[in-house]
Amino acid sequence: MVAEILNVGSEILIGDILNTNARYLSLKLSEFGLDVYCHTSVGDNLKRIKEAIKKALERCDILFITGGLGPTKDDVTKEAVADFFSKDLVEDLEIKKNIEEKFNLTKTKITNNNYKQCLIIEDAKVFKNRKGTAPALLVEHKRKKIFLLPGPPEEVRDIFENEISSYLKDLAGFLIISKNVNVYGLTESGVDELVADILEYENPTVGIYAKHGEVRLRITAKAKTEEECKTLIKDVFLKIKQRIGRFVYGFNTNMQAALVEAFKLKEKTLAVAESCTGGLISSKIVGVSGSSEIFKLGAVCYSNHAKTKILNVREESLNKFGAVSAIVAKEMAYGARKVSNADIAISTTGIAGPNGGTEEKPVGLVYVGISTEKETRAFKLFLSKNEKDERNTIRNLAALFAMNKARVEVLKF
Amino acid sequence: MVAEILNVGSEILIGDILNTNARYLSLKLSEFGLDVYCHTSVGDNLKRIKEAIKKALERCDILFITGGLGPTKDDVTKEAVADFFSKDLVEDLEIKKNIEEKFNLTKTKITNNNYKQCLIIEDAKVFKNRKGTAPALLVEHKRKKIFLLPGPPEEVRDIFENEISSYLKDLAGFLIISKNVNVYGLTESGVDELVADILEYENPTVGIYAKHGEVRLRITAKAKTEEECKTLIKDVFLKIKQRIGRFVYGFNTNMQAALVEAFKLKEKTLAVAESCTGGLISSKIVGVSGSSEIFKLGAVCYSNHAKTKILNVREESLNKFGAVSAIVAKEMAYGARKVSNADIAISTTGIAGPNGGTEEKPVGLVYVGISTEKETRAFKLFLSKNEKDERNTIRNLAALFAMNKARVEVLKF
Repeated sequence: MVAEILNVGSEILIGDILNTNARYLSLKLSEFGLDVYCHTSVGDNLKRIKEAIKKALERCDILFITGGLGPTKDDVTKEAVADFFSKDLVEDLEIKKNIEEKFNLTKTKITNNNYKQCLIIEDAKVFKNRKGTAPALLVEHKRKKIFLLPGPPEEVRDIFENEISSYLKDLAGFLIISKNVNVYGLTESGVDELVADILEYENPTVGIYAKHGEVRLRITAKAKTEEECKTLIKDVFLKIKQRIGRFVYGFNTNMQAALVEAFKLKEKTLAVAESCTGGLISSKIVGVSGSSEIFKLGAVCYSNHAKTKILNVREESLNKFGAVSAIVAKEMAYGARKVSNADIAISTTGIAGPNGGTEEKPVGLVYVGISTEKETRAFKLFLSKNEKDERNTIRNLAALFAMNKARVEVLKF
Repeated sequence: MVAEILNVGSEILIGDILNTNARYLSLKLSEFGLDVYCHTSVGDNLKRIKEAIKKALERCDILFITGGLGPTKDDVTKEAVADFFSKDLVEDLEIKKNIEEKFNLTKTKITNNNYKQCLIIEDAKVFKNRKGTAPALLVEHKRKKIFLLPGPPEEVRDIFENEISSYLKDLAGFLIISKNVNVYGLTESGVDELVADILEYENPTVGIYAKHGEVRLRITAKAKTEEECKTLIKDVFLKIKQRIGRFVYGFNTNMQAALVEAFKLKEKTLAVAESCTGGLISSKIVGVSGSSEIFKLGAVCYSNHAKTKILNVREESLNKFGAVSAIVAKEMAYGARKVSNADIAISTTGIAGPNGGTEEKPVGLVYVGISTEKETRAFKLFLSKNEKDERNTIRNLAALFAMNKARVEVLKF
């Protein structure tokens, strides 16, 4: 079956907001095997909404409309759909009760506008909105289904996950579930070479994606139940792991979450001393819920003074080899570990550009240090890619490399 | 004149990427007084692209198409447009030369696919692409203009800013320029009360926007030249400053950039000690180009151990008042300043949630410390908003408050 997405909202057309609903719905609809061939956005304008509905219904079986269900005069999506199908708007007593309860709770006065939200299209199926006041509606007409959803992304997500997805599952009779295998240390073509035959599978299918220094293998299974999907996915996941297990760092995760999980598993702690990555590693790790258990210290030490004072890097090393050197990377990691009492410490020092590069130490040269009680090492990386946003690229690649080193190291404990 | 945006790319329709080009172009086109009433996205499919072009040209005078200009077989936008207008594709020698030079530079082998990018639609105007291999094209047909742009957002931006904007300026005969006045410390309605009459102006217009704890006043001027626009904007900016000057922290900037600028102006340095904001302040500041001059130390110290060891917070204070207390915030700021030799240090300690709150110290309680040679103070904030992403909201509001304090403080030097 073919679905289409129509996003209503003048704020989309003047560029005030980014249309995240179209992406979210596209992702979700693919899980139910629905093909989406077109997205359209129009403003809060009765005529243009009706025109867009007309064109969309010429192309699709199920239309998802977001936005324009609010209480103000601008919001005319419900009116447009009712008008298009020559249906009436009728008051829904349950919705009225819900709105009144919500306003009583926050002691806000109900305005006449709010009562506009109690109106639904006659014969429409109503889906509860837990995050806002406008419920979602389903209108059926001559074998076409039209879903009306509110505009705020968190409301769209909540209604879709709690209400619409089970409806679509029943409709489709099957489910499509995708999970990612996270790979670090192989290029796209490297992975491709090792799993080429697996990429030919039909159910589950396996797709390969390279992004920001990592490779993802996306396994997509189609089956009648979630359990069947999961079993299909697990079987292929194990096959992939057999082939490239060393390079698989996780399942449906990201590097910082995999790192935190590994440290939790081994009950070890981490310290991070950053120069060229300037807080990027710390903020990525801190963003993982529960990371405070394992994260002892994050120190951003740009200046030589901070490096000597906080991390006990020797002035001699700085003078003799420069801040961007293997020895300083090692001393930073060692110092961070010592001062924080962490089990493992990592460090970065390098030239992220765009300025500061020399022939001897070009932009993209980064040293990553790692220190454990047993030993302290440094790795020399050349990360320049001549990309548009080179500075951020270099910082991200260095952060990824350092986090992976810490993750691999802690798993040896 | 009416413009429309058509984004081509199957990856948009499967939800793999967010359609940022539509937003960017909408924002830009409004600067030239072009009305955008519709966005459409379709996949890399010849028939559907042609169908979308047909419908769009029924509604608009200028059509902007992005995507599908790449070297692979999937990319068929150029072919679709040529086909639609019954035009031929012809080889462009200059493009060919450029591509060959680019490949020689990186010593990559040119494939036959790449030569596909040397083909342009006959009679099309070519706009240079400095960031990629596919140039932009302009096809004119019966008073309609069709721009073909590549898909990668950074290429769209580059071509638009360097090539297309001056073309559109000549076409429109006027320019629309917008600049933001950045306000911190007043609510939206507080600003509204103080500048209500200014919000009624017709040229420039002034709009008011509240976001993440800040208020922006957007001044939009329409005139024949950039200079005239700038003069119009400056006059209103000065009027706004007269009214709410204390709360205006910048012009077309953000808090971290305004902070770095203030520290540079006064030639002073900053240290940051973070607990509940966990690296957020450091990473925001480090993200500002040139911040390394003023940023002496960023220390993320979650654990009591790190607070005592790195920042010399007294164990007594931690035991008696707890880590989330005014005294610890002060000692963190003082310690960070001392250990780094910075002129000013700020600190954060608080309960960002969702867990860890008590009746006495609820989620949203944050202390911000600030230390200079003259004095060390702490501020108590209650930042809970019961929002969806409360943890991040609290961390962002605390970071903003602390950065503003440092900015105001350094300007006293």
